[in-house]
Amino acid sequence: MEIYLDNSATTRCFDEVAALMTDIMCGDYGNPSSLHRKGVQAENHIRHAKEVIAKNLKVSDKEILFTSGGTESDNLAIRGCAYANCRAGRHLITTQIEHPAILQTMKHLEEDGFRVTYLPVDERGCIRLEDLQRAITGETILVSVMHTNNEIGSLQPIAEAGALIKKINPRILFHVDAVQGYGKFRIHPKRMNIDLLSVSAHKIHGPKGIGFLYVDDKVKIKPILFGGGQQNGMRSGTENVAACMGMAKAIEKIYANLDEDVEKLYQLREAFVKGLEKIEGVSVNGCPGRAGAPHVVSVSIQGVRSEVILHALEDKEIYVSAGSACSAHKPQPSATLKAIGLSKDLLSSTIRFSFSIFTTMEEIDYTLQTMCDIIPMLRRYTRK
Amino acid sequence: MEIYLDNSATTRCFDEVAALMTDIMCGDYGNPSSLHRKGVQAENHIRHAKEVIAKNLKVSDKEILFTSGGTESDNLAIRGCAYANCRAGRHLITTQIEHPAILQTMKHLEEDGFRVTYLPVDERGCIRLEDLQRAITGETILVSVMHTNNEIGSLQPIAEAGALIKKINPRILFHVDAVQGYGKFRIHPKRMNIDLLSVSAHKIHGPKGIGFLYVDDKVKIKPILFGGGQQNGMRSGTENVAACMGMAKAIEKIYANLDEDVEKLYQLREAFVKGLEKIEGVSVNGCPGRAGAPHVVSVSIQGVRSEVILHALEDKEIYVSAGSACSAHKPQPSATLKAIGLSKDLLSSTIRFSFSIFTTMEEIDYTLQTMCDIIPMLRRYTRK
Repeated sequence: MEIYLDNSATTRCFDEVAALMTDIMCGDYGNPSSLHRKGVQAENHIRHAKEVIAKNLKVSDKEILFTSGGTESDNLAIRGCAYANCRAGRHLITTQIEHPAILQTMKHLEEDGFRVTYLPVDERGCIRLEDLQRAITGETILVSVMHTNNEIGSLQPIAEAGALIKKINPRILFHVDAVQGYGKFRIHPKRMNIDLLSVSAHKIHGPKGIGFLYVDDKVKIKPILFGGGQQNGMRSGTENVAACMGMAKAIEKIYANLDEDVEKLYQLREAFVKGLEKIEGVSVNGCPGRAGAPHVVSVSIQGVRSEVILHALEDKEIYVSAGSACSAHKPQPSATLKAIGLSKDLLSSTIRFSFSIFTTMEEIDYTLQTMCDIIPMLRRYTRK
Repeated sequence: MEIYLDNSATTRCFDEVAALMTDIMCGDYGNPSSLHRKGVQAENHIRHAKEVIAKNLKVSDKEILFTSGGTESDNLAIRGCAYANCRAGRHLITTQIEHPAILQTMKHLEEDGFRVTYLPVDERGCIRLEDLQRAITGETILVSVMHTNNEIGSLQPIAEAGALIKKINPRILFHVDAVQGYGKFRIHPKRMNIDLLSVSAHKIHGPKGIGFLYVDDKVKIKPILFGGGQQNGMRSGTENVAACMGMAKAIEKIYANLDEDVEKLYQLREAFVKGLEKIEGVSVNGCPGRAGAPHVVSVSIQGVRSEVILHALEDKEIYVSAGSACSAHKPQPSATLKAIGLSKDLLSSTIRFSFSIFTTMEEIDYTLQTMCDIIPMLRRYTRK
């Protein structure tokens, strides 16, 4: 039995999504820019995909840009805003626990003369609105806060932050990286004062290599890829028609029974956390219960290194991450775990379990049992 | 009978490619950055895809970067080189007939203080080496010349240009946009003094949304997307595993019988051109016979506007482009057609036929017959 509990890294694609993509790649394979019937057919697919997304977010389809994934969406949002608005100011605000696609882009902008404030988080991994309020200056042009943290599943007060920002200065733009939160929560940018929203398809059982950026139609950003002028000049390059439609299909499926599915995820999470807490020297990070995301469980295990437990679980065909997949190949302490004040010895003893709608209670039980069995054994080896 | 003669815009995906992608998306769906078995499995796919490409180019697999397609490859090559080498100089050289992914990127760099020389072309659409030699200055850091023109199929003297550039100054980098030439020609960067090479999969029966950039390992470029540090920090973002493998499979298939397939394309082209030249007031642009690409035929038709003939052909289920698909939605005269000195009245009376290995002689015959039938009729309407 293969138990895949690394769904925050990536998910299994829905069969229906892959089948639809095959039909489009081999049948409706036209270039949306071509003027003939096969081009128009492809353009109709692009339009349909935008409509599905727009309807889901309760925005206009003109406000959706297709990108090659979460990283490009984040880059386009941050740099696109920064360069379009640098005359109004050169100060940006984000948090200490963002995904590298935000943090590294911010670092790049710092080298280019922008000033960036990185908001701290509390021990649950949440920013404080007072910190945000204090950080905003007359020079601030953009605030970027992630919806759901990828390592510990903490949720940020997005709606409250949006309201606060706009109350202080309606011209400050608000970007939300929703790569981990989208598909688990209903996110309506207009109600939450979100100007830009990043989403990736492969975290919600869609294909890799596709994502979108919502950009409020009143917001001007600059493109980061230049060429044929597709997508109104905002993102050049032939649209990935099959993947756009695949993403739209995944969205329809994931939101079809959202409440039920999320309830199930929370029940899995609760059972799992309850079981884990019975194991000595094991603690769960992030927001407790339903204050956190339904699908992420960050677990610190005293006296056992992350890689050791990761590979011990792998031997039992249980797949998890040490930290996040995005940084797995660079063994440096997680910025997120440091930011929540995890003690130094636990920084390298923390693993992440992440669930999907395919995860079952049997898998959780088996994983719990395995954890109970192997942790004492691994500790014995480690201590020798 | 549907006759798709717009293969320079995009191609039908091979069934085998789509099937392989489905297997990966729904089976080997891991994130290559994950440390467990499913991650390693995905990483192995990425490695295999790189090996296939590297072997085809006779380069090292460390020299291949995956991108979201031709546009990103071109952007990464040009901007990546310009910003990494701007201390050595701020002068770039390209041609007047490049794809917008090059021309618009150059324009962006001009706004950022770089100087760009746009080489003219002769009436067949080829640069003159003397012009290139004269354009090179002590400030020149990069020359970018496309392999095969997307609108008229003219071939540039790539090997000769490479030799000339390196003779003048070995430190000047040479980029080749091979989006239209790859899959029709064997391109070996090391022998041709090419430092960077852009390729897109969807022009060779692979999926959309994936391409690669070859970068010689002695060449330093700066990334244009920041994040998790994938691909040695040169292109952040979860690798599109299924599409990488789909591209590799398409490359294997397209190069399996290259000589035979290209010979067939040239025969189709010759028959088509011969037939077209019998029609009054019809002329073929670009290099004649085998001096040009095997799959592109640019045709000017006196007295009939491009869109009119495009839609008349569409009525007969024959799909072609007016100019290139990339600029189809922006009705402005083609820079390429202007550069080869096409008379003003023909600029808006030119269409492009482009073939693939799926194109048959029957389709060519039918298309020729249709052209013979409709052109006199369309001229009569136009002249009224």
